[in-house]
Amino acid sequence: MVIVGELINASRKSVAGFIEAQDAGAIQELARKEFEAGAQYIDVNAGTFVGRESHYLKWLVTVVQEAVNAPCCIDSPDPDAIEAGLSVHRGAPMINSISLEKGRYDRLLPMVAGTDFKVVALCMSDEGMPETVDDRMAIADKLVNGLLRSNVKMENIYVDPLVQPLSVNKEFGREFLNSIEKITAAFPGIHTMCGLSNISYGLPNRKFLNQAFVVMAIGKGLDGAIVNPLDRRMMANIIAAEALAGRDDYCMNYLKGHRAGKFELE
Amino acid sequence: MVIVGELINASRKSVAGFIEAQDAGAIQELARKEFEAGAQYIDVNAGTFVGRESHYLKWLVTVVQEAVNAPCCIDSPDPDAIEAGLSVHRGAPMINSISLEKGRYDRLLPMVAGTDFKVVALCMSDEGMPETVDDRMAIADKLVNGLLRSNVKMENIYVDPLVQPLSVNKEFGREFLNSIEKITAAFPGIHTMCGLSNISYGLPNRKFLNQAFVVMAIGKGLDGAIVNPLDRRMMANIIAAEALAGRDDYCMNYLKGHRAGKFELE
Repeated sequence: MVIVGELINASRKSVAGFIEAQDAGAIQELARKEFEAGAQYIDVNAGTFVGRESHYLKWLVTVVQEAVNAPCCIDSPDPDAIEAGLSVHRGAPMINSISLEKGRYDRLLPMVAGTDFKVVALCMSDEGMPETVDDRMAIADKLVNGLLRSNVKMENIYVDPLVQPLSVNKEFGREFLNSIEKITAAFPGIHTMCGLSNISYGLPNRKFLNQAFVVMAIGKGLDGAIVNPLDRRMMANIIAAEALAGRDDYCMNYLKGHRAGKFELE
Repeated sequence: MVIVGELINASRKSVAGFIEAQDAGAIQELARKEFEAGAQYIDVNAGTFVGRESHYLKWLVTVVQEAVNAPCCIDSPDPDAIEAGLSVHRGAPMINSISLEKGRYDRLLPMVAGTDFKVVALCMSDEGMPETVDDRMAIADKLVNGLLRSNVKMENIYVDPLVQPLSVNKEFGREFLNSIEKITAAFPGIHTMCGLSNISYGLPNRKFLNQAFVVMAIGKGLDGAIVNPLDRRMMANIIAAEALAGRDDYCMNYLKGHRAGKFELE
């Protein structure tokens, strides 16, 4: 399971403040905490700063990598911003994300072609957001085949089927979950990942719902997630779910988590 | 989702004590609490009393039904004990369980034939415990077809694929989960149910693991469970999982649970 730490995101008020103040120390402290809590990639997102996104993304990548020995997940819908972040990144980052939207696809494909970057392939096209399994499969098929033709290895592709809110349509959870299952079956060796929190948009007890959703999605094959790694209950749920889904030899990781106190939640 | 309250079970020391002391009040208090917490069936099990099981099961059914307006889940591997419980039961109970073990099957099939009882069909045969999806499907196929031929309606059959401990084999969770999915697909209109706690046998943080497992199983189609309905976190997980699995129109049950404080867990 790949854990991407989601905290360094300018849509969070405190983080936006750190970015504007160019408070490298505060950003680095967050990065360190996420890394220590188990994040393998540190997401960096400066999307709320229109006109300054590229500049700030570059700064975020630099200060994060000064603090932790981990790659970033360079997170933007804007290929220019991703290019700026990439220009200062050491090692192989995760690119979040390519989609089937024409402007984004045409600019990003050459940027990731032939690299060993991890590439998030978001199931979105110029026709809008997908709703059903079929919508997602049609987009995933084009994205995955485009990436493979551009010499991105199957094991470096992370399809994000795009979580839609349950409050809008009670089938949106199931359509997403069945997409995970179908994508995993259709492309052996591929990965899937997603941000979870959209599932609970407009509903109460969001954390609780998100935690249950990640467990269910892991049961369907999900093997990557953008989460808050400091949410101890979320992380405990992921460890338990991986064991239940048959991904933990002799439950060793589960037992290790137990000994480390990761299930002491109250 | 059918919730069967599991607390009135003689394998619990306190309950064995109540049974031996013929303390109807204590049993009835448990039954009332389970019912109020959302159990639709009250499981009664006197299996630890060898030689006296039938007698005590009859007594349990009687005292439980004096206290709550709900059917019992008459729980025994022994057809004689089930027959005894049945003799005093008002309304249509759940029978837990028929299996493919010859002695059990031959005696129980005529007992449930043509009735509107709910029948738990446990995936166990004289060849022992099932391990794989195929083992379970082979048994389920015979059990379900036998029940249908005996005029038990599909919607009254609850297949229990039998949970095996993850500590014995890391694939046991997955084999169970995939069985739920396959049984649900193979027999449209059928139900599935199980006791969960065996999954965590031999591992620490058992409650936590059981809670994650029920969520995952609901994602795969599980629609019945024998649980402790007084475990608030377990019940909250079930409500959330049902919404996530697309079984809750407009998330109404989830929102109702929220208003009733069911997600106030700390």
